[in-house]
Amino acid sequence: MNRPKNIQLDSNGKLRHFLSIEGLNRSLLTEILDSAENFTSVGKQQAKKVPLLRGKTIANLFFEPSTRTRTTFDLAEKRLSADVINIDINRSATAKGETLLDTLQNLTAMQIDMFVVRHNSSGAAHFIAQNVPDSISVINAGDGRHSHPTQAMLDMFTIRREKQDFTKLKVAIVGDVMHSRVARSQIHALNILGCPEIRVIAPRTLLPLHIEDLGVHVTTNIDDGLAGVDVIIMLRLQNERMSGAHLPSKQEYFKDYGLTSKRLKLAADDVILMHPGPMNRGVEIESSVADSDNSVILQQVTNGIAVRMAVMAMAMQGNIL
Amino acid sequence: MNRPKNIQLDSNGKLRHFLSIEGLNRSLLTEILDSAENFTSVGKQQAKKVPLLRGKTIANLFFEPSTRTRTTFDLAEKRLSADVINIDINRSATAKGETLLDTLQNLTAMQIDMFVVRHNSSGAAHFIAQNVPDSISVINAGDGRHSHPTQAMLDMFTIRREKQDFTKLKVAIVGDVMHSRVARSQIHALNILGCPEIRVIAPRTLLPLHIEDLGVHVTTNIDDGLAGVDVIIMLRLQNERMSGAHLPSKQEYFKDYGLTSKRLKLAADDVILMHPGPMNRGVEIESSVADSDNSVILQQVTNGIAVRMAVMAMAMQGNIL
Amino acid sequence: MNRPKNIQLDSNGKLRHFLSIEGLNRSLLTEILDSAENFTSVGKQQAKKVPLLRGKTIANLFFEPSTRTRTTFDLAEKRLSADVINIDINRSATAKGETLLDTLQNLTAMQIDMFVVRHNSSGAAHFIAQNVPDSISVINAGDGRHSHPTQAMLDMFTIRREKQDFTKLKVAIVGDVMHSRVARSQIHALNILGCPEIRVIAPRTLLPLHIEDLGVHVTTNIDDGLAGVDVIIMLRLQNERMSGAHLPSKQEYFKDYGLTSKRLKLAADDVILMHPGPMNRGVEIESSVADSDNSVILQQVTNGIAVRMAVMAMAMQGNIL
Repeated sequence: MNRPKNIQLDSNGKLRHFLSIEGLNRSLLTEILDSAENFTSVGKQQAKKVPLLRGKTIANLFFEPSTRTRTTFDLAEKRLSADVINIDINRSATAKGETLLDTLQNLTAMQIDMFVVRHNSSGAAHFIAQNVPDSISVINAGDGRHSHPTQAMLDMFTIRREKQDFTKLKVAIVGDVMHSRVARSQIHALNILGCPEIRVIAPRTLLPLHIEDLGVHVTTNIDDGLAGVDVIIMLRLQNERMSGAHLPSKQEYFKDYGLTSKRLKLAADDVILMHPGPMNRGVEIESSVADSDNSVILQQVTNGIAVRMAVMAMAMQGNIL
Repeated sequence: MNRPKNIQLDSNGKLRHFLSIEGLNRSLLTEILDSAENFTSVGKQQAKKVPLLRGKTIANLFFEPSTRTRTTFDLAEKRLSADVINIDINRSATAKGETLLDTLQNLTAMQIDMFVVRHNSSGAAHFIAQNVPDSISVINAGDGRHSHPTQAMLDMFTIRREKQDFTKLKVAIVGDVMHSRVARSQIHALNILGCPEIRVIAPRTLLPLHIEDLGVHVTTNIDDGLAGVDVIIMLRLQNERMSGAHLPSKQEYFKDYGLTSKRLKLAADDVILMHPGPMNRGVEIESSVADSDNSVILQQVTNGIAVRMAVMAMAMQGNIL
Repeated sequence: MNRPKNIQLDSNGKLRHFLSIEGLNRSLLTEILDSAENFTSVGKQQAKKVPLLRGKTIANLFFEPSTRTRTTFDLAEKRLSADVINIDINRSATAKGETLLDTLQNLTAMQIDMFVVRHNSSGAAHFIAQNVPDSISVINAGDGRHSHPTQAMLDMFTIRREKQDFTKLKVAIVGDVMHSRVARSQIHALNILGCPEIRVIAPRTLLPLHIEDLGVHVTTNIDDGLAGVDVIIMLRLQNERMSGAHLPSKQEYFKDYGLTSKRLKLAADDVILMHPGPMNRGVEIESSVADSDNSVILQQVTNGIAVRMAVMAMAMQGNIL
């Protein structure tokens, strides 16, 4: 196994941390998707529980608020039978002047097995993974503008369930790419899984520099960008970034980049429509489109639990076998 | 079964949601009381747990703060072995501009089995019940001024344990009826269970219009109202409503409507005294009266857990059998 | 058993509440340490769980914020398989004007088996223990400036693991003794366990009156105080007390009382260094010293879980056997 050294993998190439899509290969991403497929059945059982992580302790370290991601991680952890500790870092020890490293060493001393980390600084999860002992796995639940790998994998899982084969797909990613950790992770995952055509559609002010280097086609014209695509991934417009230089009004944005039923017709007939939530109806998406048959937005949520169970179980496998 | 359509019941007339006392009949209320009777033993066991809802997920959606109701639901859920997710809605997704309906659909997509809902808008729990799929049960933990059905049932349970037969009772409800969801639910429950005489005692400014239509006797004179009653239910005086037109000072209120030991003597010798808590000692009730032998206020709390276990187990029965 | 009446003990001299070190004897403290020794193995198991308190309900009542203590109690409770209710009292019923006694009676009525209490008033845990029925155990997780007995016991446990025999030790306690509940509990525990020489080192403004009466040697000169000691216990400097009469600047404090590598050399070669956390690096302790081989600061954290499991299991023993 002459694999390049990657903090996410152990010496056998198995998943140890899940920090970013970059650095993982197609076979590992496929293994996650296959494992998630097995976990989907747990949510349909009478007793939605498997004893896989019984007696393991998982700490959810949320340095940034979140409902959807946090609740689905919490559910995934409980369905794996782990003991869960929720630590709202904003209201705790760091307020007493303790360094992040000291906080981490203390949590490590509490014999916690896994940290699920959400942080507004890019690279926070990597930093944490570099500073915990071998026995602890770190899962990135979103760091700054950098990465949101479990979101990307639940999106990939949803696409695979609907479209089977990534190697024939045209995928459009629409909206505030600049501020989106989700978009970055999706682009990496689609590339690794062999998607031949990824289009990024956004106003110039919401496009990061050198985005083309990631292997995507860029357009500022949504009608051009949507033509014939099989998958549309809408991004959430962060309201707090609406003001100032970046954007005109919400109305203007909707006029130029909102996904309307008329624009949906430009895509393939069986196009699927995705959104990481929470949606701003009438801003980035027309309400009736969000609820249309093409929408798989709620399937994304359901799939998120199975994908998170898979990632956590895989990262702990050295620990539980 | 030619039952009128009622969203709370399934096609066999079994409990599916528990939203309000209205629309339920005496046999169903009695079934809840009988079931709660069985659950009282769980709290006395060495291991206070039954595996009835093991592997089920219950989300406590509290749009309004609460300690007593929330803690007793939480305990009831854990004693039923359910997995519990507490979602403090004020601090979460709705703050990001998501609609309530989108929040609900997301929670539904997470394969949650039951929502326990507390909301400051009347009708919120009904709205939610109308908008979830068949597989999910909704329990109303208090909505606006409308209804607080589990509180009413724990009160009925407490009365039945002390007095056995509802059909011979005189019951007085004293205080801020206008703002009280508890009072409304109690009146409905007492009527359905056959209580022949319900008296409502309050200053005119705290009496809702047309309260007599609910089948109660109304008086503004507490001494008249308490004469010979078997049960006294005190209501909490909401401090935030003391100012302005509704009320004079707390001292005045206590003078005119406070339950004193002197007034307690007007009732039957074996009168029982109830209060939903938290009490304002010295405002709606004299402190020594709250602690007297006639008081069953703490039994109400204990009974609340058994009643909530009963209601949740019954609502899930289609799901677990 | 002609033991003086002590609310912490039952009629057989067994632990019932754990409120303060004072009033307990050497054999009971040793029993706690021995029991904790057994529980250390749980944290190293594949499944970090024992079924000892399964079906028991423990309420963590935190009237004052805390991360470290609260998280380790939470973990200890989950590893004992108890059901845990976290009640953040600041944001709850007391805000509605309920008295502490009414809050307690309500929690008691919920058939909770144990209260873990953190409060900013000295004596709060004692008050609570005096006002709950016999079936409920109370554990003090820190009350005002008075006592923090589980912290003291985890410190004793850490010392015994490193030094075995208390009867030959010189121990220095350094820093803000005046405001420290930890220091008080440590001094009592060291005395009871037979430590022959306890030195207290602090500026005059941070020394409580009559501290010598506790059987300690007092010095304001850290170099004198550290000479030849086997154990150094640093206290946290509360930033909020830095201003005004008590202290000069942080820089001054570090110069006069900070533990530097140079000062560490004054102690015995195999001195161990402790700190209850969170540390202010560069204020009470030089960063490299905190991370040196002499430091057992992180072992304290790990040991805290085993000690808390031991105390809770012992206090519940009448309840579970």
